[in-house]
Amino acid sequence: MQFTSEKRLDDGVLEREFTLGEIPGTLWTPGSAPVPLILMAHNNGLPKGEPRLVARARQTASYGYAVATIDAAGCGGRPRSAADEQARADLRRAMQAGEPVDEIFESFIGPLVGNAVPEWRTTLDALLELPEIGGPVGYSGWTAVGIHLAVTEPRIAAAGLFAGGYVPRAQREEARQVTIPLLFLLQWDDEGNPRQRALDLFDAFGTKEKTMHANMGGHVGTPWFEVEDGDRFFGRHLK
Amino acid sequence: MQFTSEKRLDDGVLEREFTLGEIPGTLWTPGSAPVPLILMAHNNGLPKGEPRLVARARQTASYGYAVATIDAAGCGGRPRSAADEQARADLRRAMQAGEPVDEIFESFIGPLVGNAVPEWRTTLDALLELPEIGGPVGYSGWTAVGIHLAVTEPRIAAAGLFAGGYVPRAQREEARQVTIPLLFLLQWDDEGNPRQRALDLFDAFGTKEKTMHANMGGHVGTPWFEVEDGDRFFGRHLK
Repeated sequence: MQFTSEKRLDDGVLEREFTLGEIPGTLWTPGSAPVPLILMAHNNGLPKGEPRLVARARQTASYGYAVATIDAAGCGGRPRSAADEQARADLRRAMQAGEPVDEIFESFIGPLVGNAVPEWRTTLDALLELPEIGGPVGYSGWTAVGIHLAVTEPRIAAAGLFAGGYVPRAQREEARQVTIPLLFLLQWDDEGNPRQRALDLFDAFGTKEKTMHANMGGHVGTPWFEVEDGDRFFGRHLK
Repeated sequence: MQFTSEKRLDDGVLEREFTLGEIPGTLWTPGSAPVPLILMAHNNGLPKGEPRLVARARQTASYGYAVATIDAAGCGGRPRSAADEQARADLRRAMQAGEPVDEIFESFIGPLVGNAVPEWRTTLDALLELPEIGGPVGYSGWTAVGIHLAVTEPRIAAAGLFAGGYVPRAQREEARQVTIPLLFLLQWDDEGNPRQRALDLFDAFGTKEKTMHANMGGHVGTPWFEVEDGDRFFGRHLK
């Protein structure tokens, strides 16, 4: 893990860019004492520098967590094949037209999740070597990656999942095997995530300690107080 | 309003029983400085001294709110007619047998809500005369009463509603007129409140600032951290 730049924010949080082989990442740490770690992944199409993600990560770090994000293979700013670019364009077009997207979704997002999770695990190995990161480890964000991580990576102790309307079939099936505490965020009128599918997914999770927070509005309308609620959720399970 | 007894709790909250005409009530206040007020109503069949309600009221008062509850007409420890007793028994038997309950519910709970709300408003008038109660005013608990209060009583600024599966038709229709901020608690497997009806009710509320918190388990299984979450909700809207 090579740190390539660093910035000290006004509230004392240290924001560092890093590379780990081909994986670019960002790490936010609130100080030098070992703290719990939260892996924060978001929508595969957006880069790790997307302002909403950065604002959420900085705020979360200020609560006393190390927060890390990466652009996993095929995600964010990472190189994409022409076929991936085409699939992404097809998916966007179909969603906007209100056409069925399951087939495109399955063939495109399914492999993306499968390729992303090993990189998140490699990143986790490297992060836990740092003296300023203790444990336990939480996960926050992209639902499909969170499910696959939760069932393959025993170090994940709790997860906050967002926008679970469209999730590849493999992860819908894995949901029953998820037994860690979950906070499941639902935007009631998420234009890209059918509500009933998200409710069905929440129902399917194997864990007993699952809570859903549903708020009004579309995909990007999650109220800011949910970041604080996330802190309280992770506080119960990681601190 | 006559105070009939008082008790100082360990954390300094003052717990007082009162009567207001025929209405028996309990008031919890955290100190002498004016604070916001929360009206806390719960399931019509249970008395205001029910330990879960009392624990929630005491905790909420310790956060810096005045909290008041009453046994409204026909509720809790108030006298009931033989017909009411019969209706209550019929309702319980039908629910336990998994039979349709809408007809009994409508004829029994509908009038109960209609009779309870004027007594809550009378109580509110009296409470707001007390120097240790300022405002604004929130409501917490029984969904049907909360809806009817929210649309008839302009002093209610925010409401936390619980168990909205069975709600009289009049209140289901009034839900669209509710425009105050709402926190809607749902127990995912509430044996007395069908999940889909609760989801439909949440959808129906006219307010834009509504949040649902869903947790696993039955009617009495709401996790204790929801009391803290309620404090944060009321903190945003009453403080």
